Amino acid sequence: MAARSLHFPIIIIIIASTTIIFTPPALASQPLNHLSSKRAPRFLSKHSYPIKTQLQEQQQYRYESKYFYQQLDHFSFLNLPKFPQRYLINTDHWAGPERRGPIFLYCGNEGDIEWFAVNTGFVWEIAPLFGAMVLFPEHRYYGESMPYGSREEAYKNASTLSYLTAEQALADFAVLITDLKRNLSAQACPVVLFGGSYGGMLAAWMRLKYPHVAIGALASSAPILQFEDIVPPETFYNIVSNDFKRESTSCFNTIKESWDALLSEGLKKNGLVQLTKTFHLCRELKSTEDLANWLDSAYSYLAMVDYPYPSSFMMPLPGYPIGEVCKRIDGCPDGTSILERIFEGISIYYNYTGELHCFELDDDPHGLDGWNWQACTEMVMPMSSSHNASMFPTYDFNYSSYQEGCWEEFGVIPRPRWITTEFGGQDIKTALETFGSNIIFSNGLLDPWSGGSVLQNISETVVALVTEEGAHHIDLRPSTPEDPDWLVEQRETEVKLIKGWIDGYLKEKKTAFSM
Amino acid sequence: MAARSLHFPIIIIIIASTTIIFTPPALASQPLNHLSSKRAPRFLSKHSYPIKTQLQEQQQYRYESKYFYQQLDHFSFLNLPKFPQRYLINTDHWAGPERRGPIFLYCGNEGDIEWFAVNTGFVWEIAPLFGAMVLFPEHRYYGESMPYGSREEAYKNASTLSYLTAEQALADFAVLITDLKRNLSAQACPVVLFGGSYGGMLAAWMRLKYPHVAIGALASSAPILQFEDIVPPETFYNIVSNDFKRESTSCFNTIKESWDALLSEGLKKNGLVQLTKTFHLCRELKSTEDLANWLDSAYSYLAMVDYPYPSSFMMPLPGYPIGEVCKRIDGCPDGTSILERIFEGISIYYNYTGELHCFELDDDPHGLDGWNWQACTEMVMPMSSSHNASMFPTYDFNYSSYQEGCWEEFGVIPRPRWITTEFGGQDIKTALETFGSNIIFSNGLLDPWSGGSVLQNISETVVALVTEEGAHHIDLRPSTPEDPDWLVEQRETEVKLIKGWIDGYLKEKKTAFSM
Repeated sequence: MAARSLHFPIIIIIIASTTIIFTPPALASQPLNHLSSKRAPRFLSKHSYPIKTQLQEQQQYRYESKYFYQQLDHFSFLNLPKFPQRYLINTDHWAGPERRGPIFLYCGNEGDIEWFAVNTGFVWEIAPLFGAMVLFPEHRYYGESMPYGSREEAYKNASTLSYLTAEQALADFAVLITDLKRNLSAQACPVVLFGGSYGGMLAAWMRLKYPHVAIGALASSAPILQFEDIVPPETFYNIVSNDFKRESTSCFNTIKESWDALLSEGLKKNGLVQLTKTFHLCRELKSTEDLANWLDSAYSYLAMVDYPYPSSFMMPLPGYPIGEVCKRIDGCPDGTSILERIFEGISIYYNYTGELHCFELDDDPHGLDGWNWQACTEMVMPMSSSHNASMFPTYDFNYSSYQEGCWEEFGVIPRPRWITTEFGGQDIKTALETFGSNIIFSNGLLDPWSGGSVLQNISETVVALVTEEGAHHIDLRPSTPEDPDWLVEQRETEVKLIKGWIDGYLKEKKTAFSM
Repeated sequence: MAARSLHFPIIIIIIASTTIIFTPPALASQPLNHLSSKRAPRFLSKHSYPIKTQLQEQQQYRYESKYFYQQLDHFSFLNLPKFPQRYLINTDHWAGPERRGPIFLYCGNEGDIEWFAVNTGFVWEIAPLFGAMVLFPEHRYYGESMPYGSREEAYKNASTLSYLTAEQALADFAVLITDLKRNLSAQACPVVLFGGSYGGMLAAWMRLKYPHVAIGALASSAPILQFEDIVPPETFYNIVSNDFKRESTSCFNTIKESWDALLSEGLKKNGLVQLTKTFHLCRELKSTEDLANWLDSAYSYLAMVDYPYPSSFMMPLPGYPIGEVCKRIDGCPDGTSILERIFEGISIYYNYTGELHCFELDDDPHGLDGWNWQACTEMVMPMSSSHNASMFPTYDFNYSSYQEGCWEEFGVIPRPRWITTEFGGQDIKTALETFGSNIIFSNGLLDPWSGGSVLQNISETVVALVTEEGAHHIDLRPSTPEDPDWLVEQRETEVKLIKGWIDGYLKEKKTAFSM
């Protein structure tokens, strides 16, 4: 496998930020649901590195942009307007239909597909080894793949948004690849799926639902078990918290204590003005909760991108950034207040290069808020924050509040049990031990999403690759000279498994043909 | 297995009658598409035994009728009214949740579910052996399971009909069984699927799409390959024709020649009046085509129900009824005209008991025309009639005409490639050899639908059970004292395989639990 030294970032797709509930002792016995009902938990990346910059950096990944007209509802025959799905395609290294060159398909997730394309170095790097075509179809309702002619129309209301679902996205992929293969006389070419985070969930589900379309899937950091009651709702925040605790107990404690400090400060006269100053915000803070969410997001992101080498996740970061954050928090001179320590620490995440002079709390350059809709319909991932193990404010997931928030925001009622009904998840080992094949669930245990992923082999061919020191879909990142051995080995294993799928497919194909 | 002597009929669910094209030599070179474009091929049972009579006969199958409110579109979040899905349930023999008693679920197809329930003796007979619950959920848009409050509203137009699809029906089954199991604390109870004809297709597809919901499927006479170009379009009518030819070549020839005779007669002055008399029709014939369709249907049905013992398929029939039809056709005194011979033969099918004094060509007591919608949307099964091997008028499937007919009838455009994209079928052996498990495809080779079914083992656990002398889902019929050995053995094999699935599941469950 070619080892390129590309330092561009892997994009973190899902970010959790449950609504932060402040529970100072005096308020602890009061019902707090009214606070959390204000909105549904968000899973969106809010603060990110401008995509254009990345694109300029990554011009070595060449592709054509094309468009395919898709049914808006694959599962009904309502007379709806078709929409153009964008896909990126590169056939430079493709061995072609006669030689049954494979097709590597990355399952686009909730964002601009160019963003994922330039940030999934692994697929680009290994495609030449396999003589593979590379294909990045965009997820409907993101990037340029907008129903109803424009983002504005597509996001107008619950009716126009109603076809933004994972099942429809999977059907888009299936229809696109089937049509493309037909047009290229490439029906016999094996398709291998890739995906990270939500894209990894899509890859795994697609292999399960469309085995006739794709022969295998590498699902990296795909929390397909983060639904209903399959894993404890505290899992995510416990992992984030442990990532900090393993660096420094005092750092963990400072963060854990900071929420009360934050709330107290916010409640003071001129408290918001003071917080605006302490945290160098560009605009005056409107509510303490906004600031808490901004901090919460940073900690969760930091856990996801706690990579062993410097990387640029939206903003550039040092290697093992959590260690750096904790060094800052712990290393302030005696007498530094908790909130000042927190600001010092968080600056690693939001301002490592020191270029920023003030911070914007609300910023969504990637227009990712489609995920809010998805979280309010199918992607209901219950998240709590436990009293002891978590450094975040204690919070019990409350579905009624969640539902209320979704109703207020979108006028839609979530279906919290639908994903497990449609895709499974409960008792996954029994269900898939003798059903299904060729899926890799790769996870790094530093990644808080690993807790909702498949961490044990299910069968001989539905396997889990787990790395102690890995973070969010690190294996999909481009290789770098600083890659630790375990990462190099993990990718080698993945390449070997994928090769096995393709060889097995070609062998079966030959047998079936000679029958 | 208890052998009850129940002589009630197995209902034949799918009936093919492609539009009959008359091709007398003089017209052979003219374009005939305008005839076939009048309507889409129909797969409906039009002439059937009144359901009420059957229900009275079959009161020994006890069940409760219940209703479950379903989403109208599982795959979007449009704000649509829920609808009541009827399901029949019997728990008399169920071993219960603690003992992990299985749940036998028959995938309701395109008709009143009571009709299928009373006609699927096999499931009722074997349920006690397994301590199984019996469940017959109705297919949406059939029987009492009507969206929009009534059949009239549900069938109003293409918009209201648009959610009548197989995918939605499968999702209905998945949601229903998941909810039911939760309510009964029966999450650990294995579900086994059954289905015949379209119901068999649903059972196979459900096992593939929802392996976490059901551990295996018996798909009897399920033509899941009767799509696109997977099997030659002549397959169906060639098998029907061979069923007649194997009884008597002269019978085959008489039928083959009868279409020209029919057309000539119809073109004569007073020809329709004469045909009305020859065929003892209750009302004056409006077009020769109507009569041809009536005959075509009968031949196709006869092939499907060419059972080795007397049965009542809509109308009572003798054992091996095609032999009887041919005896009548061949046995007429010299000088009997072709059309009179045809009438004598067809009377076996339409009037075996001799009770009828005249015949109605249009009769649809089961309200099955939802299938026309399904055939005009997803279920596009190309059917041709070959010049030599078929005893039917030569006809080449013409998709443009088909599409035109669907547009005229429903204002809908079919998606002829959707089923294979969604469910596979092309190159099924390669796709499923190392993916999926626990499906039985059972077929009798007399059944014209067998040609579009899976007739070879795909893997060790996705297997084909083929009987030379079997007809349409004969294995799902109740056992009778006249069952030939091969049928008894077939059912024993099925019971053994199903037992293997359940045992395997319980073993895995135990292993997973003890991990």
